[in-house]
Amino acid sequence: MKRMEIFGTLKKDMDAVERSLYACIEVENEALGEAAMHLLKAGGKRLRPAFVLLSGKFGTYELDRLKLVAVPLELIHMASLVHDDVIDNAQTRRGQLTVKAKWDNRIAMYTGDYIYAKALEMVAGLEDPRIHRILAKAMVEMSIGEMEQIRDFFNSGQSIRRYLLRIRRKTALLIAVSCQLGALAAGASTEVARELYNYGYNVGMAFQIRDDLLDLCGTEKQIGKPPGSDIRQGNITIPVLYALQEDRLRDPLLGEIGRIHEANGRTDVNAAVAMITGSEGIARAEELADRYTQKALQALDRLPDIRARRHLRDIAHFVSRRTY
Amino acid sequence: MKRMEIFGTLKKDMDAVERSLYACIEVENEALGEAAMHLLKAGGKRLRPAFVLLSGKFGTYELDRLKLVAVPLELIHMASLVHDDVIDNAQTRRGQLTVKAKWDNRIAMYTGDYIYAKALEMVAGLEDPRIHRILAKAMVEMSIGEMEQIRDFFNSGQSIRRYLLRIRRKTALLIAVSCQLGALAAGASTEVARELYNYGYNVGMAFQIRDDLLDLCGTEKQIGKPPGSDIRQGNITIPVLYALQEDRLRDPLLGEIGRIHEANGRTDVNAAVAMITGSEGIARAEELADRYTQKALQALDRLPDIRARRHLRDIAHFVSRRTY
Repeated sequence: MKRMEIFGTLKKDMDAVERSLYACIEVENEALGEAAMHLLKAGGKRLRPAFVLLSGKFGTYELDRLKLVAVPLELIHMASLVHDDVIDNAQTRRGQLTVKAKWDNRIAMYTGDYIYAKALEMVAGLEDPRIHRILAKAMVEMSIGEMEQIRDFFNSGQSIRRYLLRIRRKTALLIAVSCQLGALAAGASTEVARELYNYGYNVGMAFQIRDDLLDLCGTEKQIGKPPGSDIRQGNITIPVLYALQEDRLRDPLLGEIGRIHEANGRTDVNAAVAMITGSEGIARAEELADRYTQKALQALDRLPDIRARRHLRDIAHFVSRRTY
Repeated sequence: MKRMEIFGTLKKDMDAVERSLYACIEVENEALGEAAMHLLKAGGKRLRPAFVLLSGKFGTYELDRLKLVAVPLELIHMASLVHDDVIDNAQTRRGQLTVKAKWDNRIAMYTGDYIYAKALEMVAGLEDPRIHRILAKAMVEMSIGEMEQIRDFFNSGQSIRRYLLRIRRKTALLIAVSCQLGALAAGASTEVARELYNYGYNVGMAFQIRDDLLDLCGTEKQIGKPPGSDIRQGNITIPVLYALQEDRLRDPLLGEIGRIHEANGRTDVNAAVAMITGSEGIARAEELADRYTQKALQALDRLPDIRARRHLRDIAHFVSRRTY
């Protein structure tokens, strides 16, 4: 997703957010911010700031105030990615070397800590105590989610429910909170903020399921890393769980997962990927993502019919078809 | 320092803080909080909560409110220790295995993230925006300090000023902020809060210099880890910098530090420790610590003469003589 395509009407304001992100990360101290800057330059869809700004349109839209939510949310997302890369032992992200690969795990840890702290420093400029409470609660959930991710590596016996809870914490919650806090920071009513939360939550779930599908069905060019990275890292996603429910696939796929686990991921994952992409798991996961997209659209229907609502609808459709 | 000895008069309230720390870390989810709990049980002096409570005595002392500052500050301290152990590659702390040694670096990273987030969640219960701003700013400084620590490993050419700036960020700032926020949360005047900040800052500096001295002069029993751990990890402390200023020691000590560096710390550090403890660096560092203690006492002199002031004075004296 090219940022500018879908957020065209927000271009000027998104550019201001981008400048603010850079200003926030710039450390006076020589090479200190180098890793953080590398991360920032690697780009990203800036989905969370876009959700904040669009949600702010449902209240009194004031860019300077909304930036104090939009920038910290993107920073928290970035920080969680750096720490994730340590957990996943990931070498590349978005086609670029990860901080842990370019520097090391320790630098990645502190780069994440620093970015988290900068996010908090900025959000401290807002006085609404609800914002601090919601954000802190989301950060607790996210950190629990990432602890659960470690625990569930290579756990092919986990339930669908457990997978959904994990992606809720890993992805959907922060997107939901982006929408909710955008609305609250703009002084929208709690009802509007709640529906925007529902919208964001469901878009986030669809987004992550699509992401998990892409890791199996996308090309390296599309996804910026070799396909099958998830299973290589032991991250058991929903297409895999569905595939494991098919009698003819269960034993051979369990065998492949066991083999990858034993080799600590340093082996060929093509056979496993072929089994999963040849299963009904792909279509079933796509259907599930679509159901979340439908719920997101229903939440939008309960909101005032302003232009931002149409943009949010476009994003929901876009997420449901995304190929990168 | 046994917590109860010096904080005897606060015993009941410190016990409430302790219970609140446990309640905060308890995760519903089975083994998830295991590493965090291990950390909590390993104990600690709980200096920061004590400073919060004693500083709160200079305003309207209300335990339930002060706990919302005292518990998060101890949690932030704990989280920074877990992440520090990853940086320092430390195997033991306070005589116990570190989280990274008992589990691994990834668990240590997320245990720290989780504890940070829990701290923020609790402090979000306070509505005073100054508290959030001061705390966020301190967390930014702390994370910069820890990035600087990595950069300065085995840098024997660093200035005294650089060392002082590092321990300011690493230790003194959070103690200063504990005093300041305790006062603010109790509704004390900004002048009182500022003097308590000054007191805490200077006690913190003295504390860290004493800590660095103990690592060289203490016994394994006193400090819960083998002496010379700092230099083994490449942490160049002020007694070392002073020793390097002595002509007769400079070259042999540089040689030893270079040798330890080349061996990545997996070598004998006795010769280096003997050179430093045989230098004037010990007495000079002690003098410097005493000067900070004097400044802390002077800050107290400018505060109202209440019982808490005498306790703070006792702590300053205690820190300046501490052998563990």
